Amino acid sequence: MNELTIELRAESKIPLYEQIYAFIKEDIQSGKIMCGEKLPSTRALAKHLEVSRSTVELAYEQLLSEGFIESEPCRGFFAAQIEELYHFKPMQAREEKKDDCEKYRYDFTPNGVDLKSFPYNAWRKLSKDILIDDRTELFCSGNPQGEYGFRNAVCNYLYQARGVNCTPGQVIIGAGSDYLFMLLSMILGTSRKIAFEDPTYKQAYRLAGSLSYERIPIPMDKNGMQVDKLSQTDADIAYVTPSHQYPTGIVMPIRRRMELLKWAGEKEGRYIVEDDYDSEFRYKGKPIPALQGYDAEGKVIYLGTFSKSIAPAIRLSYMVLPEPLLDIYHERHSFVNSTVSKVDQLIVQRFLEEGFYERHLNRMRALYKSRHDVLIEALRPFHGICRISGEHAGVHLLLAFEGDVREEELIRRAKERGVRVYGLSDYRLCKSAADRPTVLLGYANLSEGQIKDAVSILTQIWI
Amino acid sequence: MNELTIELRAESKIPLYEQIYAFIKEDIQSGKIMCGEKLPSTRALAKHLEVSRSTVELAYEQLLSEGFIESEPCRGFFAAQIEELYHFKPMQAREEKKDDCEKYRYDFTPNGVDLKSFPYNAWRKLSKDILIDDRTELFCSGNPQGEYGFRNAVCNYLYQARGVNCTPGQVIIGAGSDYLFMLLSMILGTSRKIAFEDPTYKQAYRLAGSLSYERIPIPMDKNGMQVDKLSQTDADIAYVTPSHQYPTGIVMPIRRRMELLKWAGEKEGRYIVEDDYDSEFRYKGKPIPALQGYDAEGKVIYLGTFSKSIAPAIRLSYMVLPEPLLDIYHERHSFVNSTVSKVDQLIVQRFLEEGFYERHLNRMRALYKSRHDVLIEALRPFHGICRISGEHAGVHLLLAFEGDVREEELIRRAKERGVRVYGLSDYRLCKSAADRPTVLLGYANLSEGQIKDAVSILTQIWI
Repeated sequence: MNELTIELRAESKIPLYEQIYAFIKEDIQSGKIMCGEKLPSTRALAKHLEVSRSTVELAYEQLLSEGFIESEPCRGFFAAQIEELYHFKPMQAREEKKDDCEKYRYDFTPNGVDLKSFPYNAWRKLSKDILIDDRTELFCSGNPQGEYGFRNAVCNYLYQARGVNCTPGQVIIGAGSDYLFMLLSMILGTSRKIAFEDPTYKQAYRLAGSLSYERIPIPMDKNGMQVDKLSQTDADIAYVTPSHQYPTGIVMPIRRRMELLKWAGEKEGRYIVEDDYDSEFRYKGKPIPALQGYDAEGKVIYLGTFSKSIAPAIRLSYMVLPEPLLDIYHERHSFVNSTVSKVDQLIVQRFLEEGFYERHLNRMRALYKSRHDVLIEALRPFHGICRISGEHAGVHLLLAFEGDVREEELIRRAKERGVRVYGLSDYRLCKSAADRPTVLLGYANLSEGQIKDAVSILTQIWI
Repeated sequence: MNELTIELRAESKIPLYEQIYAFIKEDIQSGKIMCGEKLPSTRALAKHLEVSRSTVELAYEQLLSEGFIESEPCRGFFAAQIEELYHFKPMQAREEKKDDCEKYRYDFTPNGVDLKSFPYNAWRKLSKDILIDDRTELFCSGNPQGEYGFRNAVCNYLYQARGVNCTPGQVIIGAGSDYLFMLLSMILGTSRKIAFEDPTYKQAYRLAGSLSYERIPIPMDKNGMQVDKLSQTDADIAYVTPSHQYPTGIVMPIRRRMELLKWAGEKEGRYIVEDDYDSEFRYKGKPIPALQGYDAEGKVIYLGTFSKSIAPAIRLSYMVLPEPLLDIYHERHSFVNSTVSKVDQLIVQRFLEEGFYERHLNRMRALYKSRHDVLIEALRPFHGICRISGEHAGVHLLLAFEGDVREEELIRRAKERGVRVYGLSDYRLCKSAADRPTVLLGYANLSEGQIKDAVSILTQIWI
């Protein structure tokens, strides 16, 4: 056969060899060229199409490499048996289900991250740099704990920023804190009882439930989890957020930390899970070192994440295991494959090592501090009506109402005016009649102007 | 103060404003400029340094945004309290522990993927395209099941390539099959008993052990897991690889598949986990549709991955849940955050939708088929000495020895000559004296020349 009708478009952006490849492929797929049929020689086709022979050779090579044609020495090229080849027809995307979430003008979510300040340029640059060469080692299977270089960078960061004492060998990288908690549950086993601060971070509490743990709520006072109450239970694990308790914003003082460590030391198999989820942002005084840094007996499991400090879609968290648990991990669970791609690990490693993270944190801190200050100032009219707490750190604060008003009522009234606020009740494990109505106001996602406008609405409806 | 000594290097690649920023930052961090000290006005400094005023303004803006200086209206700029700011000193990387794995000249690993053929160009292009704009939606938190568009693309692919019947709502995306198995164990609960093919894929078997499942080995015949033996146990879940059993390479015929589905239908709460880990590569005849496609009663949980067909470091797998389990997932476990970044999901979505995956699969298939054919041809001298099985699909085959020779002995002799081969014993759950010595030869990672050379060595030492 010689009568291939290929209409080449010289002005097209698609290279000529690709056009030839596509025509022949289409003809083979549609059956116009049948299995076993001989193709014109590269020389003949080049002449016929008035293109260079190497152009046709490139097209044939592509067809060969994808199995559409076969080459027989001294005989030429033949259309192959293509039934076995992949050919996916594009299908229409199904209708996406609409989110029926209500629209608010202002959303004081305590879980916000300002994504307008995401370091897009640095991310693009690093991502491009890392992919620039064809590096097979980037795509082969990685270390189950995470790449060594990245774990080393995390170690250095944790030591300098958080006073965490560890070696890269103790660090396990995972795609988010939920995953690391699941891995931890394999290491600890699920027959243990976990004590949670009340109120608490519901995500971890629910996850512990999904993993079939018995969960014990422990009340808090102004210094955090009450260790005397903890001692009265048969909990083995205490899950705490000492740097900035979620959601109350309490910073656990050193004395309470020591009590907690003492509790853990009193019995074999007791551990503390320190979730340092948003320790990065403090606006007054120095950051408080992590509880892990005081731990001499290998009792603290330290959890942290880049999802809060960089962006929620960065699925990158880390866990620092104390020696006894590290041994169990290596003996029984280190065969579990890593959940983070090497490319992502390398991007964040260089983000840390080349100073981008330091700059990013300082910028975000300055930004959040301004919003924090604006919010505190805007809340002046509430003095005497509410007690404000949880300020000077994190990205939200709490407003506890003194008077005779119901929390749901406050939330409902705000909603009517397009303002979304969050009730503390949602974070409480044991509800009591003595609980004061309290709302959380997160400011990470709102501009200073929006904060002023939204609080002025709240002033009208809450006072 | 006006006497800032800043030596600008005009010929440097670092922009002037960055140099000014770095000098002042350094002086503030080192204490040369003390907290509260006034900085020169932008006008004065610009004059002093002989640069444009906007250059100095840019530097000051950067310092302001990172909190190193503060601006007071009508008074000027002042060095800030910097104790609270982040400043990470670069630390020396710790010595990495050396892998003491032995070196082989030829490694017939059955888990290989040819990474020289990774589609680097397409990956780079897609990755660049996706990051090109500052898209906040890329970095905000995603759908726990995975992004809808990506799940839709996976559905279309699975329908066309594997005959899997599902909607995007049934698909859950996860960072690797291990993670998805962990998530599945939360949905199923851990009180169930799981039947495994014997020999089997040890990763899943070990993971089931780590998750505290009772595991029941079921012997196989030439058609796969023996369903009559399965029926005699009290297993609730059957974990199978019907498209291409790992490691034996058996393709489960339709009749056995129907028996398995019947077994699952006989009792409430019974399920089949179909791990379709490497169904992409078949060199003879059409691919066999997935077991899931025959399932009318919602009994099959389908697992698949891009780690085998694209690259191991692509941490992207998918699970298709039948309706009853989907309900449990939504009720109790859908709060668990996704483990895959949106950027990665989008790259692979476009990889699928724009035809790159189809081309990649056809190329890899052609490549692996050639290696497969070369290996089969090179193994001719073994006819009569061994039975070859598991050919025509996947990326490895098996050599079962007839004579009186021990498996370890075969492996040891190959090792002495620098050739790594794998014994079937490592995959067996129950060992028996009747087991024939069998080695696995994987060819995905070896060139045709290497295959010939390595087999010629094996011929010398095994015959």
